[in-house]
Amino acid sequence: METLKIVKIGGNIIEDETSLNAFLKLFSNLEGKKILVHGGGKRATSVALKLGIESQMVNGRRVTDAKTLEVITMVYGGLVNKNVVAKLQALNVNAIGLTGADVNSISSEKRPIKEVDFGFVGDVKKVAHESIDKLIQADFIPVFCAITHDGNGQLLNTNADTITSQVAIGMSKLYKTSVYYCFELNGVLENIQDKNSVIKHIDSKTYKYLLDRGIIADGMLPKLENCFDALKNGVNTINMGNTDMLIKANDNFTKITL
Amino acid sequence: METLKIVKIGGNIIEDETSLNAFLKLFSNLEGKKILVHGGGKRATSVALKLGIESQMVNGRRVTDAKTLEVITMVYGGLVNKNVVAKLQALNVNAIGLTGADVNSISSEKRPIKEVDFGFVGDVKKVAHESIDKLIQADFIPVFCAITHDGNGQLLNTNADTITSQVAIGMSKLYKTSVYYCFELNGVLENIQDKNSVIKHIDSKTYKYLLDRGIIADGMLPKLENCFDALKNGVNTINMGNTDMLIKANDNFTKITL
Repeated sequence: METLKIVKIGGNIIEDETSLNAFLKLFSNLEGKKILVHGGGKRATSVALKLGIESQMVNGRRVTDAKTLEVITMVYGGLVNKNVVAKLQALNVNAIGLTGADVNSISSEKRPIKEVDFGFVGDVKKVAHESIDKLIQADFIPVFCAITHDGNGQLLNTNADTITSQVAIGMSKLYKTSVYYCFELNGVLENIQDKNSVIKHIDSKTYKYLLDRGIIADGMLPKLENCFDALKNGVNTINMGNTDMLIKANDNFTKITL
Repeated sequence: METLKIVKIGGNIIEDETSLNAFLKLFSNLEGKKILVHGGGKRATSVALKLGIESQMVNGRRVTDAKTLEVITMVYGGLVNKNVVAKLQALNVNAIGLTGADVNSISSEKRPIKEVDFGFVGDVKKVAHESIDKLIQADFIPVFCAITHDGNGQLLNTNADTITSQVAIGMSKLYKTSVYYCFELNGVLENIQDKNSVIKHIDSKTYKYLLDRGIIADGMLPKLENCFDALKNGVNTINMGNTDMLIKANDNFTKITL
């Protein structure tokens, strides 16, 4: 099986032109078949504010109403996605920008209303791995933003981390998949106070050990739970660290395997 | 040679939900290989206004400054394009939304500054017909918005009619191409006062005849000049009329051939 790399970057990189350009250069040098997934960043919030759309929060969580969804579609699907594609083209990466609606790549269903109505938020239902693969086989590099659709004409806001893991799980039917979650830290840290205490390799056994010792807790816990869920569903390797982990010689990041 | 239909719709259809849905239904019923090109409409102007970006006009023509380009990228490339794609998916059309940056499909160069600096406006330089064809061969339906790129990372605002004719010329290397320009009139009219006086067929000979008699003048003249230019460069047929021309039984529109 051929390897497919799926790289996720967050808003912190998207928002800073210098960081974005540096990252895209690294991404362009990445060998083999690859997919990029990007988050949106605070740009959507600032555009919404200027348009007089207030962010609705319920129990501390953002609600995507119809107006907010329009802003997200404009900012993530248009401004961010298409500028990333144009920048990648300038680096000779034959990128193609996608939402989940394009080639019906990621369908989702509107999150059911329980205690909170999150509005136009979609939970991923199906990844059309064969359609995505047609693009990859044509030597195009898919660039996903954090938008899916319900198949009935409705776009839906979807978490970029979830899109990453679901696309990776889907593509695992055809490829040996390696996911790269780029974030601010160098990796999963043994000591949260020491940014250089990167745990280089976590597998099911060491994960249990780290859990038992309370080394993995708080925000890192759900992140790693998601990772192991993806690994159990076919994903081969998950890497967590800052964008430098895309540099070939660098091994200062966390590699997670089953 | 197989036939490829290239349909262009303008802002008037995009802006009206009922018209748009009716058109997309017609487009979905269109048999064979096809491409959609859409204009933007006034939505970009209203979003720009809300964001406090004033439309700069020089000699009565709109200038695309950096801020306006951002709005165009948000509205045409994001909001309009992705909603059209989602609506087409709901009609079982496996659409893929594109700017000229995606798969490097349409490269352009920034219009040189002469009397007027039009800003970030691009004149089409090259259509990557083989890349576009890879999408068509994969049974995807390309949906273009009116944005191109310069290959150096810069998106550029480009007229949707120009994109339509240039894509059609490019695709003529691989297909027998039929272009459908949807606009408000039923077609080219013999008598501008009588909306039913549609001239059903214009070829080079009848065009000369109509020109000599002054029947074609004003706004229709550059439109038809562009049509004959496209026909001379490989396009097979150009059709002009309202969206009803996509209904099979209807022949009340203008068909233009060499």
